Amino acid sequence: MTAVACYGAEGSFSHIAALQYFGEGASIIGTGRFTDIFELVASGRATFGILPIENSLAGSIYENFDNLTRSNLRIIGEHLVRIEHALLVKKLEGVSPEDRIRQIRKVLSHQKAIEQCLNFFSDHPWIEGTVAGDTAGAAKQVATSPDTTLAAIASTEAASLYGLQVLRHSIEDDPKNYTRFVVIAREMGEPELCDKCSISFGVPHAPGTLLKVLQILSKDNANMTKLESRPVHGKPFEYLFYLDFHFGRSRDEILPQLRTVTYDLKVLGRYRAATLSL
Amino acid sequence: MTAVACYGAEGSFSHIAALQYFGEGASIIGTGRFTDIFELVASGRATFGILPIENSLAGSIYENFDNLTRSNLRIIGEHLVRIEHALLVKKLEGVSPEDRIRQIRKVLSHQKAIEQCLNFFSDHPWIEGTVAGDTAGAAKQVATSPDTTLAAIASTEAASLYGLQVLRHSIEDDPKNYTRFVVIAREMGEPELCDKCSISFGVPHAPGTLLKVLQILSKDNANMTKLESRPVHGKPFEYLFYLDFHFGRSRDEILPQLRTVTYDLKVLGRYRAATLSL
Repeated sequence: MTAVACYGAEGSFSHIAALQYFGEGASIIGTGRFTDIFELVASGRATFGILPIENSLAGSIYENFDNLTRSNLRIIGEHLVRIEHALLVKKLEGVSPEDRIRQIRKVLSHQKAIEQCLNFFSDHPWIEGTVAGDTAGAAKQVATSPDTTLAAIASTEAASLYGLQVLRHSIEDDPKNYTRFVVIAREMGEPELCDKCSISFGVPHAPGTLLKVLQILSKDNANMTKLESRPVHGKPFEYLFYLDFHFGRSRDEILPQLRTVTYDLKVLGRYRAATLSL
Repeated sequence: MTAVACYGAEGSFSHIAALQYFGEGASIIGTGRFTDIFELVASGRATFGILPIENSLAGSIYENFDNLTRSNLRIIGEHLVRIEHALLVKKLEGVSPEDRIRQIRKVLSHQKAIEQCLNFFSDHPWIEGTVAGDTAGAAKQVATSPDTTLAAIASTEAASLYGLQVLRHSIEDDPKNYTRFVVIAREMGEPELCDKCSISFGVPHAPGTLLKVLQILSKDNANMTKLESRPVHGKPFEYLFYLDFHFGRSRDEILPQLRTVTYDLKVLGRYRAATLSL
């Protein structure tokens, strides 16, 4: 049985991503911190890890860019999950949905989930958002608390798991809400099946240095899909770049070329790109 | 008297930045949220605002990139503050510094300040870091609490203000720790005094589009110092770019040129670059 480490309790979006990518046969280990995922995979207690890296509404999860560039683990896959946030409450017999929503005082969820549902909070000013560790954990807390004025923002899967009622479906501000996950392992993926590459590198502190990187990609017809800069400790306002690109004409020559204009270039992974169905 | 809005209580690094930039004559209004600074300046209750935008150890303050691109206020100045974190406690007579540090159980500070002092926490494993709203507020809380096992990470200015003892100076992991602030106002700055420009823009979703932006900058000998991408709501994995550059040969022609290869280009501000003394 393949052991896969992910963040959060059963019913969390990371858990859903792991099930979708690896299938029901995988044994999923939920953790409380992203760094625990790296430790579980590095030590061999898990074969794979799955990490959220970017949400289409809330933006990059910068912590995981830092974790990836510092680690020796490799990205071997990518997966996109459509994020639909539901409002979950304890079911009270004989109370209409309209009355039930007026009873709610506090909604627990992950910070990013609350940020993705700001319109819901504007429309229901008597309800306050409170940050919890993860969406599924918030659902569990609502299920076990005697306080019926509590609600959670989480997946409908979490509602089934913890016996909660789905009071509202899809309360996210924008239905085009996706989270991109990367799958990590101890060894690099198989190049034949891969069309995408993630790298990190520094560039000398001089005008036009990043331009040279983009020119090499452009000449090869490689398509850059993500560029992030993160600070380098001890070198104020110098940056380590994180870059994703789809391979262009050459697969083997582009990395040596990029090495000539960068320093500390590291191949974080080669993998098959996930497709986005809108 | 010039009214300047900033984040946090007296003794916070934002407050220090405001005093250094505007001098002792300014009337400084501390706020509890970055968006309050925008509201105070937009409504005219403050003439200027000062915002942290980037820390050399902890990275960009992405929330303020989003606030800037959404607002109609303009960046008119830039300022760098060397961040030195001190460990502050209530003074107990007759207790040596060695004994005093062993009495500490919990240290309150801003999340980013805790992230900048991780070595201190490794070296003192009996001390736990707890997140507070801002560094100066944490110092105030320590000063008013009867609990003498509490400490704060904050500026030495906060120690003087709240009557606390500086138990350790400069506990940050790296002494090259700077925060870059931008000064905002309702009107654009005076172009003659400016050598730096901040813009935001989108690029069409096609290979090589960002490259065209960097080529225009490079041809003009303009030096890009910062590039950030933030998600566009409703357009999964399309990005709004935020870019800082030092003007090259032309000051008036570069923006029309950049408009030909971007969309929604917005000039966030023109200003004099701050200098970094290492």
